[in-house]
Amino acid sequence: MRFFSDNAAPAHPRVLQAIERANRLDTAYDGDGWSRQLDGAFSDLFGTPARALWVTTGTAANCLALAALCPPFGAIVCHKDAHIENDEAGAPAFFTHGAKLMLVDGPGAKVTPDAVNAACDRVRADVHQVQPRALSITNATEYGLAYVPDEVAALGDIARARGLGFHMDGARFANAIVSTGADPADVTWRAGVDALSFGFVKNGGLNAEALVLFDMDLADEIAVRRKRAGHLLSKGRMLAAQILAMLDDGLWLDTARAANAAAHMLADAAPDRLVYPVEANEIFLNVSADEAASLRAAGFDFYDWAPGEIRLVTSWDQSGEPVEKLAAAIAAL
Amino acid sequence: MRFFSDNAAPAHPRVLQAIERANRLDTAYDGDGWSRQLDGAFSDLFGTPARALWVTTGTAANCLALAALCPPFGAIVCHKDAHIENDEAGAPAFFTHGAKLMLVDGPGAKVTPDAVNAACDRVRADVHQVQPRALSITNATEYGLAYVPDEVAALGDIARARGLGFHMDGARFANAIVSTGADPADVTWRAGVDALSFGFVKNGGLNAEALVLFDMDLADEIAVRRKRAGHLLSKGRMLAAQILAMLDDGLWLDTARAANAAAHMLADAAPDRLVYPVEANEIFLNVSADEAASLRAAGFDFYDWAPGEIRLVTSWDQSGEPVEKLAAAIAAL
Amino acid sequence: MRFFSDNAAPAHPRVLQAIERANRLDTAYDGDGWSRQLDGAFSDLFGTPARALWVTTGTAANCLALAALCPPFGAIVCHKDAHIENDEAGAPAFFTHGAKLMLVDGPGAKVTPDAVNAACDRVRADVHQVQPRALSITNATEYGLAYVPDEVAALGDIARARGLGFHMDGARFANAIVSTGADPADVTWRAGVDALSFGFVKNGGLNAEALVLFDMDLADEIAVRRKRAGHLLSKGRMLAAQILAMLDDGLWLDTARAANAAAHMLADAAPDRLVYPVEANEIFLNVSADEAASLRAAGFDFYDWAPGEIRLVTSWDQSGEPVEKLAAAIAAL
Amino acid sequence: MRFFSDNAAPAHPRVLQAIERANRLDTAYDGDGWSRQLDGAFSDLFGTPARALWVTTGTAANCLALAALCPPFGAIVCHKDAHIENDEAGAPAFFTHGAKLMLVDGPGAKVTPDAVNAACDRVRADVHQVQPRALSITNATEYGLAYVPDEVAALGDIARARGLGFHMDGARFANAIVSTGADPADVTWRAGVDALSFGFVKNGGLNAEALVLFDMDLADEIAVRRKRAGHLLSKGRMLAAQILAMLDDGLWLDTARAANAAAHMLADAAPDRLVYPVEANEIFLNVSADEAASLRAAGFDFYDWAPGEIRLVTSWDQSGEPVEKLAAAIAAL
Repeated sequence: MRFFSDNAAPAHPRVLQAIERANRLDTAYDGDGWSRQLDGAFSDLFGTPARALWVTTGTAANCLALAALCPPFGAIVCHKDAHIENDEAGAPAFFTHGAKLMLVDGPGAKVTPDAVNAACDRVRADVHQVQPRALSITNATEYGLAYVPDEVAALGDIARARGLGFHMDGARFANAIVSTGADPADVTWRAGVDALSFGFVKNGGLNAEALVLFDMDLADEIAVRRKRAGHLLSKGRMLAAQILAMLDDGLWLDTARAANAAAHMLADAAPDRLVYPVEANEIFLNVSADEAASLRAAGFDFYDWAPGEIRLVTSWDQSGEPVEKLAAAIAAL
Repeated sequence: MRFFSDNAAPAHPRVLQAIERANRLDTAYDGDGWSRQLDGAFSDLFGTPARALWVTTGTAANCLALAALCPPFGAIVCHKDAHIENDEAGAPAFFTHGAKLMLVDGPGAKVTPDAVNAACDRVRADVHQVQPRALSITNATEYGLAYVPDEVAALGDIARARGLGFHMDGARFANAIVSTGADPADVTWRAGVDALSFGFVKNGGLNAEALVLFDMDLADEIAVRRKRAGHLLSKGRMLAAQILAMLDDGLWLDTARAANAAAHMLADAAPDRLVYPVEANEIFLNVSADEAASLRAAGFDFYDWAPGEIRLVTSWDQSGEPVEKLAAAIAAL
Repeated sequence: MRFFSDNAAPAHPRVLQAIERANRLDTAYDGDGWSRQLDGAFSDLFGTPARALWVTTGTAANCLALAALCPPFGAIVCHKDAHIENDEAGAPAFFTHGAKLMLVDGPGAKVTPDAVNAACDRVRADVHQVQPRALSITNATEYGLAYVPDEVAALGDIARARGLGFHMDGARFANAIVSTGADPADVTWRAGVDALSFGFVKNGGLNAEALVLFDMDLADEIAVRRKRAGHLLSKGRMLAAQILAMLDDGLWLDTARAANAAAHMLADAAPDRLVYPVEANEIFLNVSADEAASLRAAGFDFYDWAPGEIRLVTSWDQSGEPVEKLAAAIAAL
Repeated sequence: MRFFSDNAAPAHPRVLQAIERANRLDTAYDGDGWSRQLDGAFSDLFGTPARALWVTTGTAANCLALAALCPPFGAIVCHKDAHIENDEAGAPAFFTHGAKLMLVDGPGAKVTPDAVNAACDRVRADVHQVQPRALSITNATEYGLAYVPDEVAALGDIARARGLGFHMDGARFANAIVSTGADPADVTWRAGVDALSFGFVKNGGLNAEALVLFDMDLADEIAVRRKRAGHLLSKGRMLAAQILAMLDDGLWLDTARAANAAAHMLADAAPDRLVYPVEANEIFLNVSADEAASLRAAGFDFYDWAPGEIRLVTSWDQSGEPVEKLAAAIAAL
């Protein structure tokens, strides 16, 4: 029974069916009938004109956006625990040609207005220091916290005032939306977000993520950068079809709801052990090494996160018995 | 009836079935059971220890290999009609951090020993000129010509003598192998090739290509570069499974055989119109604009390649009536 | 008696004196009294508001300009014999983060409107091919030809029409101006040039070149890029002072006049041997290997350029006896 | 009376004289008689075979070394207050093509073995995190502290054990040597340093720094990278001559001694105000805003470093009255 990553989950059957349906002759790259529906589908979802490009990884989505938002000689403000800083092998520097990540701190990997202001104010406005040009936040954060619209809007105001492009890494965007009940528009473009990495793979997709551009002027450049980075797949319809299937009839919300529900069941089993509130599908628990060993001995698989701390991640396909068993095991520690 | 690109073809049913079978829980990225079989599968196929990494595009495969073979300040010798020069949006410069493509000429996009030697000899051995560090050829070439082992070995000798890494873009490797009947080992590692982009997507795959490294020392670095370029998919088993399905029971040879057979049927319809001999699944024909229009009017889809020249590409799923019809239409021009 | 390069000449005494005068305390980098005069000095010289930054090499001047004019995913149209293509060790790719040089041909390293149009028209307007974004010409060219205002203006029209930034490598700008008698404004900003690498080192400077920006919006970004490339010297006043000394009282024209006069003396000695007309301070002569050997035996130093062709370069400090001797030796061949 | 930066000082007269002497015809770039003496001069100074290249800035020296020591996908461990992190406009990322600076903390900008080990141990050995590949320290540090040989050797041991290239930024190397009395060999190659940026410009030079390579295998590659970065000046003899003049008869030690002596005079005036011990030519003092204002009113120029803290820097040409006056003024605060 694995709770180590939503990355390891299978794809949703409706996603596979969509691939099969798309498995017929059509124009290569992104000229096909499915790919051409993406702009419209995301414009509808967000209630504003938007452009959307498929990619195969969150790293690619994040870094293509950042490369368009920040010049090689600029800096991207982000949390010190951000995925782009810690788990993308330096991809932001690769795609941006050397832009700097300007790290801020804060509980639960959440970026606050004060932290952004302080980081930017610390930079002398001269040619010797790298000037901030973009802001990137993760929603839900790397510790499973979700931003509410006002929080994002406050950051958006700073971004606008300081001339920073604003990117949201939404690897678990669906989980955040389900958790807060926010209108997707309110935590993105209405709050000043220019580009959203809209994750599907952790949430039931097979290998398609969407990069949604509310600043539509970025789209043509990013399409070029996508090709230049080797990310323009020839049978792109197989990616577009996955995304359309996830959007169809709210499947992306249903799968996120299932993952979040499982997370809450686990959280409720040991509320006093929670390191952070559970606002998505990640649960960080204070658990001793011995306790962790006993959970593992009982057949549960998860990551040690720090001394005395474990991380559990639930996914769209998890419910019922395994989750109940783990909840019981945690409660019994 | 489309003959404009093998990129537009569907994936083979056995590939889709393999994806479905792999669609269950396993470790993320490339730690899963399918990905871990790749090294062995390609080592068996080529009869030598090799490392193999999945990627989703030929551009990624080519450029990851080139980045490992050539430093940012070096040059890669290739044909002026090479895909890496013309159709990858500058991806080689992106992945290598600015290495130069040193172009050579020659009929049918084929690189000859004389051309490589002349290009290298033209470079002064000083710090003012970019020094050649790698050689890249395409097999089958961009004009559908296949290298025989001796041709590759002659280039391999030059590469070794001059200290050039040797890369083969095998987007249509299968078609070349089927066409020449060569042992895959003889046109690759035995001939001095260090890295092979082994294409599957044009030949029945969905979105998985293999980068096969005969110089196994390159593999760990390329694995890092793959992640850094956003090409480490989290559900990598869905790529590995495709490749294994293509290798299984020689499917990759069967599909290439079908495509090549269709190409020959078309070529035989108008041998005097051929711009190049047909040694894979591409046919370049001298056809006037009026003739091209009449073919299109009859329902055939293809690219104009140059004034008075069209390109037809056949794919693994094409046989029977549409091919016969086109052959007849060409013969009747 | 050396005629192999104007790079090897000494600096003019007035340049050294200027350095000595500037050798006192002042603000570091480019905040000093000398550096702050550059914008004004070049604005006066060109009769239009301009920004000017010192750098220490022509390569840096060229490539900083190109990096501001062309994105990493764009192409720079230039002559196949351009210095940026042949003699800058791939610096354009380094500074631009991988932009492509799109090469055109033409006699004497001169770029023609037809060649630029043909090169650009050849590019498909899709994401697979690198799109042209800048044009760079060298004046005087690498073969010593000077552009007249109409020639530059014709290229400037194309640049504007096609959205290309327009850069002029003026390593021997002074020699070209003296040769054509053109108003500096007419071959630069009035003809559409956005950025000029204004060379001084070959013409009497010690180690200061100027990057003159007629598109003044480029200046702030280039100032950042200059620092980022390690080209912001702390005692910048020693560079600015050199440039001001060269501009003072037309010294830059006097030194170029001297070099050109020496070149013409040599050219007149063997008009029938000239490979190109002499319009600056470079002379390319058809001279057999035996003849070249005899010139060397007589104490003259120069480069073999191609089989049966030698290159002579005169410099600002050459006149009188050595030049007359060489002229006589050539005439006597 | 300025105490804001040793960058603003004039060049030493003997340096100017050397330039004048070198101002005659010689081979361009670094083939001249002066440049060719550098390897020998530094080999003699350090008592070991070494290669040395001139450059014009410390940023260029640092970043060329780092680019040779660390691949684009690696990390360089350095102090969070290091010049390469704070004052080089992202040049390390530019030259290395995106390598990451892995920051450690510690008093006085000094890097300790524990800090390096902790930083490296924190990195998971997988492809998702950037792996450390180089270590860079500054000697004297950005806060004017000097390393003794044992401190460097302890870091060198770690570097060797962990496979890290080891670079020393010696912008104020002379001041550190004079301060500690260490043998230059003992704080560099004998302690495991591979590459030293040996600063001259702050210490009496005009615009020449030396990059000294104890790992001589780096030299040829760095020579290529130097050209590619536009740092190969055509009249390189004017740089080499400066360096040789500084080395001649220990001038570099004399000038550093003078600067350090002035620093100590200031430090002795207010020992209880010192933020750090004075071990080079920088003095950081706890001084209130009012006190700082009074010093400025008395004609002294310096930087505010932090609230309640000022930085004074002395230079080679400062002694006698101005220093005494400032010492008295500080003592009288």
